[in-house]
Amino acid sequence: MTDGMFLIQDPLDPQRAAELAIEEAANADLADAVRAMVDACVRTRLQPEDVGAVATRVRQLTAELLAVAQEGPLGLEVTSDGRLRDHGNPAVGARNPIAPPLRIIKDAAAGRCETNFDLGAAYEGPPGHIHGGVIALILDQMLGTVPALIGKPGMTASLSMAYKRPSPLGPGSAKAWVESVDGWKTQVRGCLMDAEGRTTVTADGLFIVPKWARDKLSSPQSDAGDFSVPNPGA
Amino acid sequence: MTDGMFLIQDPLDPQRAAELAIEEAANADLADAVRAMVDACVRTRLQPEDVGAVATRVRQLTAELLAVAQEGPLGLEVTSDGRLRDHGNPAVGARNPIAPPLRIIKDAAAGRCETNFDLGAAYEGPPGHIHGGVIALILDQMLGTVPALIGKPGMTASLSMAYKRPSPLGPGSAKAWVESVDGWKTQVRGCLMDAEGRTTVTADGLFIVPKWARDKLSSPQSDAGDFSVPNPGA
Repeated sequence: MTDGMFLIQDPLDPQRAAELAIEEAANADLADAVRAMVDACVRTRLQPEDVGAVATRVRQLTAELLAVAQEGPLGLEVTSDGRLRDHGNPAVGARNPIAPPLRIIKDAAAGRCETNFDLGAAYEGPPGHIHGGVIALILDQMLGTVPALIGKPGMTASLSMAYKRPSPLGPGSAKAWVESVDGWKTQVRGCLMDAEGRTTVTADGLFIVPKWARDKLSSPQSDAGDFSVPNPGA
Repeated sequence: MTDGMFLIQDPLDPQRAAELAIEEAANADLADAVRAMVDACVRTRLQPEDVGAVATRVRQLTAELLAVAQEGPLGLEVTSDGRLRDHGNPAVGARNPIAPPLRIIKDAAAGRCETNFDLGAAYEGPPGHIHGGVIALILDQMLGTVPALIGKPGMTASLSMAYKRPSPLGPGSAKAWVESVDGWKTQVRGCLMDAEGRTTVTADGLFIVPKWARDKLSSPQSDAGDFSVPNPGA
């Protein structure tokens, strides 16, 4: 599913935008640190008593973070450059330690996007390989990015994956592109590739702009667009 | 994809099994603590300088965890009760903070399984709703659990999801069951449900036992089987 980014926001005032940029950088840095801790949590071989001592201190730090925190999920937020955020997104979110996070390079003119990633122990399914559901998470995000690029930001209606060969942990890549457009419906294709560029998984998805968004819709955008380039394939 | 649990292991000697049970409990407790930190990382509203101070201490703790750690991903391991592990699995892994973790209740006789979950801010896609790719991760794990229950532990060949309605964050459930069996191929269906029990997403998957595993195959099993019950639906 895409992240519900359907509207251009009014620009923030410059001072608030500058403050927000500093907050975003600090939160992204914390997420990087916690992401490394997630990986260490999977791989550590410390003795149980030492693990317990670390857990106690992790809980103290968590209490500090929660001393000032919002109650529920992030929902819709505006970022420092006035776009709707996806900082909390578990695939691309800069402040979400679950996310690798994917950096998606977008080519709006061509209706395609691509990403490189490097996945470690926390994303393992079959020994030494990426969990099939993590592959689905990556491909859902990639395919869901494409309709917004062509002005049809939609919700996932269906998503199908064909697992052709195992996808090893480590470096890999994914891409997605428009297959066809029919009114508010966009058919998208994509694939995951291993470090040698061999396709390991293919995906097809149908994305539909929700009825409530159709008249509000001006021009779609996503925070992951920090990585937009005019024509990355050129 | 399933986790490649194809063989019954020789039982561990009792002393090593007891030690391993203590290690597993400590690692699961640490993962619980880090999981709460992941959630706090998404939701915190601390000032940037305070966030930075927490990040510094998170990195110190991570260095402690990595002082004794294995180099790569977990791969295949044996657990305290002699089964192959999936502790590191990003959907069900007790020691993986990315995993909710799902507790899968298995009914081997009926060839079905079910799970309840409660997902917070770190799993958000559309505002207030579960990310479509996280739904795919859950359903991949659920559907992939079923073939093993009937002695045909397979790799995902294909997985298709139909998103019928939005899936809110918070409590929900999922189930999966055998649709048909043809030699080493198992067709599985499943669905995700909201707190009111309404189906929000349906899934179909084809799972195939790899050629290399067919003659080695005795009886399949998974560590997520801690939650096996003879007949949960009865």
